[in-house]
Amino acid sequence: MASAEYRELLERVREIGTLEQAAGILTWDERTCMPPGSAPDRAKQHAVMSGIIHERLTSKEMGRLIRALKKQELSVDGAVILRETERKWRLASAVPGDLVKEASRAQSEAMNAWVKARAGSDFGMLEPLLDKVIGLRFEIAEHIGYEDTLYDALLDEYEPYAKSKDIDAVFSRLKKKLIPIASKILNEPCLDGAVPKGTYPVEAQGAFVAGLAADMGFDLNRGRIDVSAHPFTSGACRDVRITVRYNEADPSYVVFPAMHEAGHALYEQGFLEKYYGTPLAEGVSMGIHESQSRLWENMVGRSEAFWSFYYPKFRQAYPAFKKMSPGAFYRHVNAVKRSYIRTDADEVTYNLHIMLRYDVERALFENKIKTPDIPSYWNELFEKYLGIPVTDDASGCLQDIHWSGGNFGYFPTYTLGNLYAAQFWHAAKSQVPGLEDSIAAGDTGALLGWLRKNVHRHGKRYGAATLVKKATGEALNEDYFVRYIKEKYGKLYGISL
Amino acid sequence: MASAEYRELLERVREIGTLEQAAGILTWDERTCMPPGSAPDRAKQHAVMSGIIHERLTSKEMGRLIRALKKQELSVDGAVILRETERKWRLASAVPGDLVKEASRAQSEAMNAWVKARAGSDFGMLEPLLDKVIGLRFEIAEHIGYEDTLYDALLDEYEPYAKSKDIDAVFSRLKKKLIPIASKILNEPCLDGAVPKGTYPVEAQGAFVAGLAADMGFDLNRGRIDVSAHPFTSGACRDVRITVRYNEADPSYVVFPAMHEAGHALYEQGFLEKYYGTPLAEGVSMGIHESQSRLWENMVGRSEAFWSFYYPKFRQAYPAFKKMSPGAFYRHVNAVKRSYIRTDADEVTYNLHIMLRYDVERALFENKIKTPDIPSYWNELFEKYLGIPVTDDASGCLQDIHWSGGNFGYFPTYTLGNLYAAQFWHAAKSQVPGLEDSIAAGDTGALLGWLRKNVHRHGKRYGAATLVKKATGEALNEDYFVRYIKEKYGKLYGISL
Repeated sequence: MASAEYRELLERVREIGTLEQAAGILTWDERTCMPPGSAPDRAKQHAVMSGIIHERLTSKEMGRLIRALKKQELSVDGAVILRETERKWRLASAVPGDLVKEASRAQSEAMNAWVKARAGSDFGMLEPLLDKVIGLRFEIAEHIGYEDTLYDALLDEYEPYAKSKDIDAVFSRLKKKLIPIASKILNEPCLDGAVPKGTYPVEAQGAFVAGLAADMGFDLNRGRIDVSAHPFTSGACRDVRITVRYNEADPSYVVFPAMHEAGHALYEQGFLEKYYGTPLAEGVSMGIHESQSRLWENMVGRSEAFWSFYYPKFRQAYPAFKKMSPGAFYRHVNAVKRSYIRTDADEVTYNLHIMLRYDVERALFENKIKTPDIPSYWNELFEKYLGIPVTDDASGCLQDIHWSGGNFGYFPTYTLGNLYAAQFWHAAKSQVPGLEDSIAAGDTGALLGWLRKNVHRHGKRYGAATLVKKATGEALNEDYFVRYIKEKYGKLYGISL
Repeated sequence: MASAEYRELLERVREIGTLEQAAGILTWDERTCMPPGSAPDRAKQHAVMSGIIHERLTSKEMGRLIRALKKQELSVDGAVILRETERKWRLASAVPGDLVKEASRAQSEAMNAWVKARAGSDFGMLEPLLDKVIGLRFEIAEHIGYEDTLYDALLDEYEPYAKSKDIDAVFSRLKKKLIPIASKILNEPCLDGAVPKGTYPVEAQGAFVAGLAADMGFDLNRGRIDVSAHPFTSGACRDVRITVRYNEADPSYVVFPAMHEAGHALYEQGFLEKYYGTPLAEGVSMGIHESQSRLWENMVGRSEAFWSFYYPKFRQAYPAFKKMSPGAFYRHVNAVKRSYIRTDADEVTYNLHIMLRYDVERALFENKIKTPDIPSYWNELFEKYLGIPVTDDASGCLQDIHWSGGNFGYFPTYTLGNLYAAQFWHAAKSQVPGLEDSIAAGDTGALLGWLRKNVHRHGKRYGAATLVKKATGEALNEDYFVRYIKEKYGKLYGISL
């Protein structure tokens, strides 16, 4: 039987989990429903809620329980909950409250300045404020602590237990292989054709998306689909919500954000109920979470197998597409184009955009470049990776809000997600005979079953490295992604990659 | 300059206010957006949030600050904030936590049983559970304390500072005057005619309602309008939200819940920003809040003056109504009908439904009747007040959920609201020359201005009795309501009342 201390820890962990869920609803509401004029009230609500969560997480009692339980023999589940709670407690306790507040204020100022700097395409307008944000990140990282390099302390917030020396190795191999592939494809004539002209009402698109998400296994009795400027997934346990954005001129547009967010949502809905409110019902890392969204968006959603079943349904919803052949549609949703903007990038070039950002972050936190050097370093790398010169800051280093918000260490998880996704996809296909055939027959249940069993149900039981090894029999290997790209786009373009 | 203790109290009051706002968003979400399957999670979130609010309200520190400040000389505002905070603190501290939890559990069981009992029209199915709820209310009232009669302790939760002996006097005079008036009207042939047959799409009705609410002065930059099964108003400060319900066969249906809820919302939006998060930016009582909704719904929304301007707009939105004359429409929205169901009742008979409930509550908490006597006592009073015999419990004492939820003392605030509304309406017309003419010209701004100045901006500065006296020059007097009914319906029916 569990000790009194363990039961008390669990109760406190679940209370914090419940408060985080409540705060999550406030965030969802802010991005979908909140009247614009009430932003100041919501900011106060967030501040009070975060304060209470922090106060409860770092309470003396919590420290006492953690210390006591480290001397006890716990169940396998109990040991995971203790490990992850201690991790969270340590991170929350490490950074002095005043520093957290100072960083929060500086980030808020930098994010406001970023809006103007981007509009004016002038990095100089942001530079002093961004420099302050970066300086505070150095301080925060020192408080958190690290073994090899300071950047690991930042990375750890988004990709727990990951080390930048491992990511360096993977990314440098990936770059070597991917840059020539992307370059070859980009030198081919673009295969994209126009979709049938028309206005496709949002209501019909909404119904289509709801049907698609339900077909994927998204439980709408425990979830919702709404609209927001930037699609996102939020919620937990029995209340997981996704948002999408529609394009009235092209109903294929929403399919990919919808499958992406539904992929995140399936992960959240795949945790076991008995663990709700504990780390055993939380995603491993940003990278693993992103692997779930990208697997559905790209490996499934941009595949010939999927559309061989789904394109007739799509045409039924949008009869004008009878004018567009299945082949033309498949090429349309897989168009590769040179782009300055990360969020517009296709699956071939996307990781080059990410690795560029990672290189800038690594250089900054190794003191190899300083804040004022960001634009020139960015532009140099961009031309190297994507083959075209950056013409202005707005299309260059000012395009993302992440850095102004202090989110250093976040970007690499996007590419990790793509690599995990390709490796999971390969493993699922090897382990489940006829997987692609069943998708082509309109049934994604076998894939979901594999993900449930090998990824979802574990929650934070394993770190990302262990999870990948257990699920695929191998450590993270960028070759699965490279091979996926080579095969798919080689066939699509009729070239050897 | 305010003392350190006062500043600390204010900070704590505002933190509690912010938490209450956050909890309010969760409630709004539950009733408009929440996926049905996530009810268990939401229940936990509510429990944790209430627990934290209670913990902060009843903390030792709060008691110390209140005691210290009672010895200090405070500003006028400060004295109100202290008075109302002490009141809230005293009520929260008075009832032992275990009793609150027991009552909450018993109410939850009774509400579940009520659903079945009402469906089966069998009071016996609810009786033992309702008896438990009532017993616990006796206990709770003893903990809260009272001077004259135990019922006052219950009433105080909804109508602070009110005494049942005063309400007894007002209601007994009102009954004497109203029963014969209602009886006379109900004996006349019903004036209601059918609306033009058709399906009036919800989207068009939504646009009409949004325009109407905006015309009334509802600031949609700091508010929203949504749909829910039972219309309600929620939110505070810069985020006030109302809900409505549509009838696709009759677009006049939604006008009244919309004006009712917008009336509540205008009150909330009429508090002064500098007081946000304190009792000076909260409604005086349920009765005063209801006066604001009923004044807009009935005195404005069911008046000839209002529709002389608004009916052409209504017909523009719903051209089929060109077949219904302004007179027929006015009679339609003012139809008086005998009804068993309170929520279907018109403004003439509504208060009879309420006073019946008040009489049952008073008898219960004076130990004049016991729980099993409720149906027979209800039926006896119903025939006396409304002139028809009750045929079954579902149309009788089982129709409302309030008692199963432990909400004794709530019902009388509905009639108090109607009486306050009539008295405010009379005062506004006397003090603002040409008020009805301006409404007939499409401008409700002068009325809103009067309400802002005389009611809204004061928040909880005065109790209801003082507020009514200050705004109208007189204590609560049921004759304003009686005269309003006599004049309006005498003219409508062409009879002397």
